[in-house]
Amino acid sequence: MDYSSMSPKEARRLFRNGLDRPTSGMCYGYLQSSMKAIPKKYAFDFLLFCQRNPVPEPVLEVLEPGAYETKILADKADIRTDIPRYNVYEHGKLKGIVTDAKSYWRDDLVTFLMGGSITFEGSLIKAGIPMRHIEEKVAVSMYVTNIMTNPSGPFWGGLVVSMRPIKRSKLARGVEITAKLPNAHGAPIWIGDPKEIGIKDIHKPDFGDPVSIKEDEIPVFWACGLTSIVAAQNAKVDFMLTQGPGYVFITDVPEEHLAYLNTPQFISELHSK
Amino acid sequence: MDYSSMSPKEARRLFRNGLDRPTSGMCYGYLQSSMKAIPKKYAFDFLLFCQRNPVPEPVLEVLEPGAYETKILADKADIRTDIPRYNVYEHGKLKGIVTDAKSYWRDDLVTFLMGGSITFEGSLIKAGIPMRHIEEKVAVSMYVTNIMTNPSGPFWGGLVVSMRPIKRSKLARGVEITAKLPNAHGAPIWIGDPKEIGIKDIHKPDFGDPVSIKEDEIPVFWACGLTSIVAAQNAKVDFMLTQGPGYVFITDVPEEHLAYLNTPQFISELHSK
Repeated sequence: MDYSSMSPKEARRLFRNGLDRPTSGMCYGYLQSSMKAIPKKYAFDFLLFCQRNPVPEPVLEVLEPGAYETKILADKADIRTDIPRYNVYEHGKLKGIVTDAKSYWRDDLVTFLMGGSITFEGSLIKAGIPMRHIEEKVAVSMYVTNIMTNPSGPFWGGLVVSMRPIKRSKLARGVEITAKLPNAHGAPIWIGDPKEIGIKDIHKPDFGDPVSIKEDEIPVFWACGLTSIVAAQNAKVDFMLTQGPGYVFITDVPEEHLAYLNTPQFISELHSK
Repeated sequence: MDYSSMSPKEARRLFRNGLDRPTSGMCYGYLQSSMKAIPKKYAFDFLLFCQRNPVPEPVLEVLEPGAYETKILADKADIRTDIPRYNVYEHGKLKGIVTDAKSYWRDDLVTFLMGGSITFEGSLIKAGIPMRHIEEKVAVSMYVTNIMTNPSGPFWGGLVVSMRPIKRSKLARGVEITAKLPNAHGAPIWIGDPKEIGIKDIHKPDFGDPVSIKEDEIPVFWACGLTSIVAAQNAKVDFMLTQGPGYVFITDVPEEHLAYLNTPQFISELHSK
């Protein structure tokens, strides 16, 4: 099956029916977004954490309390079932990994959807920059760094990054392509020595899977939406439901519309649908 | 006195001491931002209104409840005194216009600062695009349009725009310059016939002052931070303190740093100050 050219709608149907795999390598050219649902009492501080840290947390849609159907990023996708894998957190601790989150749903949950870096992987591949984690059929490597975020209320912590090895000859092209997509984390936040941003062992990611790095490749790091999940764990929020790291929400938004989301023109089009 | 080359710090000192004038024509090259302080109970819905309408409401700093000193946009500016003019609203109605807001301050107020279009006026002038309202020594013309925003909680209403007449020959240059500053409303949202966006009489702005439009000029419209003020009036919030339309907060942020506000690098620099 060619997952890379699959439509987002079809991918979501497969996830709803139990397909459990990382979303890298799927639905090239469409926005992939992270999902975090937290109780309403934390919602202001959490949204403010995102406003204060827009590079890791480019919020693109927020659902009303209790609502689980998207309106902007996909037409009535059910965020409780249409994502391949979910993490359930209680008091800051990971309590379960599930492929259907219906039984965990609560009416006080506010759902946040943020643009993710998996979005631009198709474009990088098209530009001749292979994605090692797709070749090795695993989730992208992610790490907690020593770059501190701006805190908000109880939310605080280090910036989380995703890493992709890139050949030196392709480095500038990789930066150029991703810099054009600030709503999907934009340009890398670090290139090169992982130790300088507090990553002790590049082969032991905090989330996702390790990948091999070749002799002529440099590790390149992008801000990652797991940043707010780590911040919520540090905050010991009593409950939180998120997508699994690397197992994210595939939206109906083509990459080229990403810059126009939530602009007046986009809003008018949405309302006239 | 040459206001255009004045430092933001000096301008804020003059405002603190009673200077009352529009901020257009002052401190060219620095971010000018709107200011809205509303009670904490509305803060989540208000911040979400901004997230859902980022073109009129590019939030760049949010202060803690009760706090009135800025940390990011200016080093300890007092937003109760360092702005030339304030509007005080009660239950959606304008109740007062003052030049010092200290006596209206409340400990439950959360202050939001959003990038404003006055920011790019200096760059437009440098590119040979004169600003009519500066020549005529008045505040920029602003209008409520029929373009509906995305609502949030009780907040709803039409997009508000500012208008600057531009010669046809300079139109593309004007779009190009402002498109580079999404944190100051970015590219125009409308060019030409005001009636098509619900403006009945271009010479009767809803806020600010009317300006003359010459034979060879086209009215160009940018999204405006008054959008959230109108939305809060529609919501009949019991109290709100804002800057006066066209009389805004002049920050210490140079225009060229605007794209990097709240990025990890910017946060690190801020914390290492």
